Amino acid sequence: MSITVVGSIAYDTVKTPFGERERMLGGAAVHFALAASFFEDVAVVGPVGDDFGEEQIAVMRSRGVDVEGIERIAGGRTFFWHGEYGWDLNSRETIDTQLGVFEGFEPKLTAGALSSDVLFLANIQPDLQRQVRAQMPDARFVALDSMNLWIDIARDPLLAAISEVDCVILNDAELRQLTGKPNLVAAAREVLSWRPARGAPGRGPSVVVAKQGEYGAALVTRESFFALPAYPLETVIDPTGAGDTFAGGFVGYIAAHPREPLGEELLRGAMAHATVLASFNVEEFGTERIERLQAAEIAERIRDLHAMTQFAGAPLALRG
Amino acid sequence: MSITVVGSIAYDTVKTPFGERERMLGGAAVHFALAASFFEDVAVVGPVGDDFGEEQIAVMRSRGVDVEGIERIAGGRTFFWHGEYGWDLNSRETIDTQLGVFEGFEPKLTAGALSSDVLFLANIQPDLQRQVRAQMPDARFVALDSMNLWIDIARDPLLAAISEVDCVILNDAELRQLTGKPNLVAAAREVLSWRPARGAPGRGPSVVVAKQGEYGAALVTRESFFALPAYPLETVIDPTGAGDTFAGGFVGYIAAHPREPLGEELLRGAMAHATVLASFNVEEFGTERIERLQAAEIAERIRDLHAMTQFAGAPLALRG
Repeated sequence: MSITVVGSIAYDTVKTPFGERERMLGGAAVHFALAASFFEDVAVVGPVGDDFGEEQIAVMRSRGVDVEGIERIAGGRTFFWHGEYGWDLNSRETIDTQLGVFEGFEPKLTAGALSSDVLFLANIQPDLQRQVRAQMPDARFVALDSMNLWIDIARDPLLAAISEVDCVILNDAELRQLTGKPNLVAAAREVLSWRPARGAPGRGPSVVVAKQGEYGAALVTRESFFALPAYPLETVIDPTGAGDTFAGGFVGYIAAHPREPLGEELLRGAMAHATVLASFNVEEFGTERIERLQAAEIAERIRDLHAMTQFAGAPLALRG
Repeated sequence: MSITVVGSIAYDTVKTPFGERERMLGGAAVHFALAASFFEDVAVVGPVGDDFGEEQIAVMRSRGVDVEGIERIAGGRTFFWHGEYGWDLNSRETIDTQLGVFEGFEPKLTAGALSSDVLFLANIQPDLQRQVRAQMPDARFVALDSMNLWIDIARDPLLAAISEVDCVILNDAELRQLTGKPNLVAAAREVLSWRPARGAPGRGPSVVVAKQGEYGAALVTRESFFALPAYPLETVIDPTGAGDTFAGGFVGYIAAHPREPLGEELLRGAMAHATVLASFNVEEFGTERIERLQAAEIAERIRDLHAMTQFAGAPLALRG
């Protein structure tokens, strides 16, 4: 089952305590697509400017990504982000954001993109997310990411967008901000209660994934809770794109299992693969590590992650 | 194998978004002892003032805790802490701390306390921790907690104290501050490399536990990594004492297995029981919930926690 992702394609300038890179390939749709390409066919939809290089397109092509939906806007400039991370990589400051071709972006889905039955709406203006969603009403699985900006300035459209997808993948701080509930479980349950308006697509979210950065991620459904730590690394070089890479692993894994119901076993496998993909992403700058990642390396870390999270589970007979 | 804990016995005034309590029973040694009492005999060593009530002593006695080592200082006042938590319970402000009888405290170990072979040095001045440690050189397992204050003003004594114990249980932010390493794994490995001075007790720490608050806890040894999420709760009322309750569950579980080597299986069981004990602690103010906790409730949450952390672990065959 192929996957369509709509979102940013960007140049990122990033400084971390370990070095810096200027105008490297980035953007949510790119990170997502590279990760998801290990699981299924992926079509990317998003705009770039005249300044976007063939070399960057080639990175996506080399992983089999369908780049037909990358729209080149004549006279435009590619979305640009410049950020710096603090010493522990948990704080980051945005030095500059230039929307460029993203200003006035209207997603146009190619026939190939429209034929996917899994859809990921990366972090873009919620009304655009809804517009894309409306064009793929029969998609089997639709997931969405967003950010604090939209919670602040486009809350109602975002709530509508969320009510029309199956799965919400957000940072835990964003989940709290979105719902006004400081408790993660309560916040997730609130999101799980939202339903689409009459005539709108979908049945309302049934899966909430809270990304917790270096602490890992939690999965909440109406019936269950599951959590995994981040894969432990002694050296993290650049967290940029980790969340989108995580989403690519998560959604990719689900897309690769078209016949399995959206139950615990499938979702937990998706969480594990998402965690492992994200762990590779942060080991080097931008897409550098994922570009040369091998399937066997992923499999090895899945086995490691499994070994790091299991315990016997038999409770001890205790004193009253 | 019985356990001795040396640390604070306190009155806490606490305000959280869910209410407040004045001068309730608290203190690291108390929270630790109540939790550990589900696993083994526990002796508490620490000072109180004239103002400390029989009612509070009775709470410990009712859980079988040996209170002979609670030293009542005539004319003194019991250690007092007053704190307020922010809306998400992750930030807290100390309004007042009155050391009272803790000023000039010299731990005196009763014969009963000295005969324990498991020792927990709760958060007190590191030179006092070393003094107690020196009196129990043959203890089979010694663990230590500390805090940012001692890292700031008594770093060298704290490093010496750590080098003389088997296990360090700290908040992850404290581990980072202590080692100057922002990466948790690197910070833990640094601590695991510390060795006692010639003639000092112990062989150096072989277990590091990083408490991560609402995110759970991680366990690092020289050979392995393990992590558990916090037990998910929709309502957390008061986090005060959660870390000490966690330590009580962790050390208690190890003490209850005198014949098992300090290997992964034992340590992971300890992590699970610690996580569950802490989850009960935060459900109500102070010691209220733990006071009426039943062994069967612990067993039930251990099974739940197990179910929430398992996944199949078979990696998917991926695209190169």
